[in-house]
Amino acid sequence: MVETIKWRDDRLCLLDQTRLPIETVTLECRTVEEVWEAIKRLSVRGAPAIGIAAAYGVCLAPDGEFRRACDYLATSRPTAVNLFWALDRMRRTIDAQADLSADELRPLLLSEARAIHAEDREQCAAIGRHGADLLGELGDGVGVLTHCNTGALATGGDGTALAVIFELHRRGHNPRVFADETRPLLQGSRLTMWELMERGVDATLICDSMAAQVMREGRIAAAIVGADRIAANGDAANKIGTYGVAVLARAHNIPFYVAAPTTTFDLLLEAGEAIPIEQRAVAEIVAAFGKPTAPADARVYNPAFDVTPAELITAIITERGVIAPVTAAAIADLNSSR
Amino acid sequence: MVETIKWRDDRLCLLDQTRLPIETVTLECRTVEEVWEAIKRLSVRGAPAIGIAAAYGVCLAPDGEFRRACDYLATSRPTAVNLFWALDRMRRTIDAQADLSADELRPLLLSEARAIHAEDREQCAAIGRHGADLLGELGDGVGVLTHCNTGALATGGDGTALAVIFELHRRGHNPRVFADETRPLLQGSRLTMWELMERGVDATLICDSMAAQVMREGRIAAAIVGADRIAANGDAANKIGTYGVAVLARAHNIPFYVAAPTTTFDLLLEAGEAIPIEQRAVAEIVAAFGKPTAPADARVYNPAFDVTPAELITAIITERGVIAPVTAAAIADLNSSR
Repeated sequence: MVETIKWRDDRLCLLDQTRLPIETVTLECRTVEEVWEAIKRLSVRGAPAIGIAAAYGVCLAPDGEFRRACDYLATSRPTAVNLFWALDRMRRTIDAQADLSADELRPLLLSEARAIHAEDREQCAAIGRHGADLLGELGDGVGVLTHCNTGALATGGDGTALAVIFELHRRGHNPRVFADETRPLLQGSRLTMWELMERGVDATLICDSMAAQVMREGRIAAAIVGADRIAANGDAANKIGTYGVAVLARAHNIPFYVAAPTTTFDLLLEAGEAIPIEQRAVAEIVAAFGKPTAPADARVYNPAFDVTPAELITAIITERGVIAPVTAAAIADLNSSR
Repeated sequence: MVETIKWRDDRLCLLDQTRLPIETVTLECRTVEEVWEAIKRLSVRGAPAIGIAAAYGVCLAPDGEFRRACDYLATSRPTAVNLFWALDRMRRTIDAQADLSADELRPLLLSEARAIHAEDREQCAAIGRHGADLLGELGDGVGVLTHCNTGALATGGDGTALAVIFELHRRGHNPRVFADETRPLLQGSRLTMWELMERGVDATLICDSMAAQVMREGRIAAAIVGADRIAANGDAANKIGTYGVAVLARAHNIPFYVAAPTTTFDLLLEAGEAIPIEQRAVAEIVAAFGKPTAPADARVYNPAFDVTPAELITAIITERGVIAPVTAAAIADLNSSR
């Protein structure tokens, strides 16, 4: 299978996701700056994956610069909380070993990054199992809509929402997946379709604007997506377009699931309004495919994420179990058992 | 202003819309086959515009082949009813002059095509006025969302939904337009943005997946789109993604308007289910921008249109006035006054 993130000797190897599916190119990062840049330009993306990459990135800092590397890497992207969570773990390791030399600290940091990576792999597997228990009840051969990419490319393991789909497939439920292409950066058509096809899952690509129609045609029994940050009340930030899918799912009486590790919760935020939403470059919309697709001076609005209110989410599937209905109390309960 | 369709001497000149906004290229059609091809590949598109182009196309037929040209041009695209309506008018002209020679008939056919063109120009202007009366009541500087392209490029005049926006602009209401890019063929980013910017209308481009978010942010006071075919009960076929916009508008308590000439009604169809929906090529989704955007063998679902049920349409704006609420009786009334 695909190796999205791999530490090798003295460097971080990332599968360059901006080049998929045309080319399979490994990006070798030897400096903190190269990791920052890889996160910023989405060579590595997906909330759990950028947390893992950032953790390894700290290990590339020069002696005595580990803490500064944590602060710097945190500026790469603002929305996914897993990034800050992973960097906080690295900071705690640094602080706990303040008396060690850089040479002594470095292997401990690498070991912590490896632990974050390994834990994420386990969490993906658990999310897959809990989600497949839930969605398996819908029956065999049912249509499942997903948005963006939430698979092995987005995590340290099999994914979040896609881990559920892979587990359904493994159990013989034969889900029929409809993948939104996910403009502007096409993570759905470039990455999700690639992962689904590699694993032999029944997959059909649609434009984002077709989701309503496939729902209306009765082809969809469930929608499932990932999350970049979930507030204490269950409001969930995810790739732009997710909120629209949730509204459409509700209008068609289709359950809407969010799959994410508990590291995606930001319990310091009461509700979704407080989640910072990254605005991205105009060029992603007007010139993303090698030729201009709009007048050169067109004004563009390009938020990278939106927030789906908890009331539109049927359940949140985590590695510790399923939260349904989605309430602040249920979220607090599940997280207090961490 | 842009000349979308122009008859010159012995040929039909079409602004090649597949090349916009990068290049302004005129396509010169001297045969019926060339017109068929231009419609099929969307060099000319927009329900009223393809009706007009097809009518002129009949005039390019060899002597004695006029009727066959009507039948052939009707096979170019299946959804927009204006195509069939315009070709029926050409057929009636042929039938009414069965005793004339081809040399005598040809100028009459050209005159009929010119009449269809001129009438559409008038209808666009009237739609603009009726629509601006209605949307002007929302106030000045309000946000208006539109999908696909419904302007001068889609019609013989100023457009349908865009004619309303142009008239609001002319009257000083300063609408702030959000244009969906309209995947897969990007008529919104390539054509609508170009037309809005040419006319100095405040315009912002978004991906289709962002419509829900801009609605949620309170930026949209009305959504307005065109139509390719409207059934007797008011169900309206339009560019894929329109139905989703209508569902989202309803969920956000935003009025949803359809602007179309009465030639868009197909009163023989009781409801929208009977409208044939064109399925288009896989390549439009997986390789539309000069480089592959999905695995080469990805399965794709690519309906060109969807149907918005009448109950989601606040009003239908025609050249004869506004239908609101949208009921079969109101539609029959308005059309019987034709």
